[in-house]
Amino acid sequence: MASFVESFWGERNNGFDVLYHNMKHGHLSTKDLADFIRERATIEEAYSRSMTKLAKSASNYTQLGTFAPVWDVFKISTEKVASCHLELVRKLQELIKEVQKYGDEQIKAHKKTKEEVSGTLEAMQNIQSIIQALQKSKENYNTKCVEQERLKKEGATQREIDKAAIKSKKATDTYKLYVEKYGAAKSDFEKKMTETAQKFQDIEEMHLLHMKKIVESLSNTVKEIHIQIGQVHEEFINNMANTTVESLIQKFAESKGTGKERPGHIEFEECDTASAVEGIKP
Amino acid sequence: MASFVESFWGERNNGFDVLYHNMKHGHLSTKDLADFIRERATIEEAYSRSMTKLAKSASNYTQLGTFAPVWDVFKISTEKVASCHLELVRKLQELIKEVQKYGDEQIKAHKKTKEEVSGTLEAMQNIQSIIQALQKSKENYNTKCVEQERLKKEGATQREIDKAAIKSKKATDTYKLYVEKYGAAKSDFEKKMTETAQKFQDIEEMHLLHMKKIVESLSNTVKEIHIQIGQVHEEFINNMANTTVESLIQKFAESKGTGKERPGHIEFEECDTASAVEGIKP
Repeated sequence: MASFVESFWGERNNGFDVLYHNMKHGHLSTKDLADFIRERATIEEAYSRSMTKLAKSASNYTQLGTFAPVWDVFKISTEKVASCHLELVRKLQELIKEVQKYGDEQIKAHKKTKEEVSGTLEAMQNIQSIIQALQKSKENYNTKCVEQERLKKEGATQREIDKAAIKSKKATDTYKLYVEKYGAAKSDFEKKMTETAQKFQDIEEMHLLHMKKIVESLSNTVKEIHIQIGQVHEEFINNMANTTVESLIQKFAESKGTGKERPGHIEFEECDTASAVEGIKP
Repeated sequence: MASFVESFWGERNNGFDVLYHNMKHGHLSTKDLADFIRERATIEEAYSRSMTKLAKSASNYTQLGTFAPVWDVFKISTEKVASCHLELVRKLQELIKEVQKYGDEQIKAHKKTKEEVSGTLEAMQNIQSIIQALQKSKENYNTKCVEQERLKKEGATQREIDKAAIKSKKATDTYKLYVEKYGAAKSDFEKKMTETAQKFQDIEEMHLLHMKKIVESLSNTVKEIHIQIGQVHEEFINNMANTTVESLIQKFAESKGTGKERPGHIEFEECDTASAVEGIKP
């Protein structure tokens, strides 16, 4: 498996920069994740609000006719779906707070790490500048040697040859010094970079673990609410099954019925003249 | 169980009106149901659009750092949720068409029914007007009888008594006629109203069955899409489980790695003056 300790060396010795910036990008991804959850919460809130409005529509539909009681079933179910989504919003907002808290901790931890790895940054800058100086001193050494040899071959004066020998000796010493310095810088950088690469990998592993936990928390919440919504659907299906055609017919007949008495039998009623006339004054 | 044939009689004989209007309200509830499904479809479409936007956000988040590949997991899952809701919209729109078709059929059926029950309406109006006339003729009969008796008692002239007797006889005939007419109207109305109440109940039962089928279709569709969304969640959870910390570390090391070669060993290299000087022109 490719690891940080293995993969961030190379000719230009700039693996440190890549790993350091990667750590900083870790904070960006935390902010992105908070944004993602926030946008999702906004969507769920809008959906919940629309569902509440739909539930109100259901109660505004005609309360006349046999079908009227069914709107209550719709209203209750739609309100419940709305409140499930609102519950999701509430839980997502809690999660956002956690993510933000983690983001703040990250900033502090990165600041601390920056200080801790400053030695490695210096070691990297040191080896980079020594490599340049070494290259230069080697070139100078070669030039001076060749110059000394040329003078010898061309039969220059002893004074000229001696002067060139001094220059050559000085170039050799410088070159040797940088070879030595390089050896020390290389060993220092290799040691520090190995430690730091491992540190960056540890930081990254911790970061990814933390992010995965947040994502897990998100998907658990979404799943949980999804199950609740499923229960609301089941409840709706059951309520509809219980709202039978017979019960609706009966409910209407009972509430809107005009009476059970059919038109009565009417017979000719003879006038009771005796009592009627009694009341008449003579 | 309270039925229409039992419950829509009563003194005022206006059960017919209540049942006729109830049938008409059946069409209103069909329109309401179409409106309800349409509003739901609009909500789902808005949700789907927001989710598509959220998926785009996910792909716009930082592509730097070890967490970057996770955004693809989010993007794919969010797009799938969006397309589930869009599928729901499509199915709801199909259902709205069915509801509208049923509403149109209802209008035609109600028109036909109106013609078929016109005889019952007339029978109802007939019995209502006969009851009024009967009441009036009875009162008139009583008045005339009393009048005749009064004249007799007060010892009026024979001529006056005869005249009152003619009036009384006429009132008696009218009263008897209405008693007879009422008998016929009652029997006609009772027969027709019984048939019509049953017809209205049949219509209502058919209507409620049809409405319940539409609602069933609606809840099946919602349930089906709910299951699909659940599968998308499961897939997301699995994909996240497969996106291990190790794999993310490895992916980053492989794609952003700067090289596996540590700084090399450097030794002092003696100048090869012989070959260097050879090239120098004397």
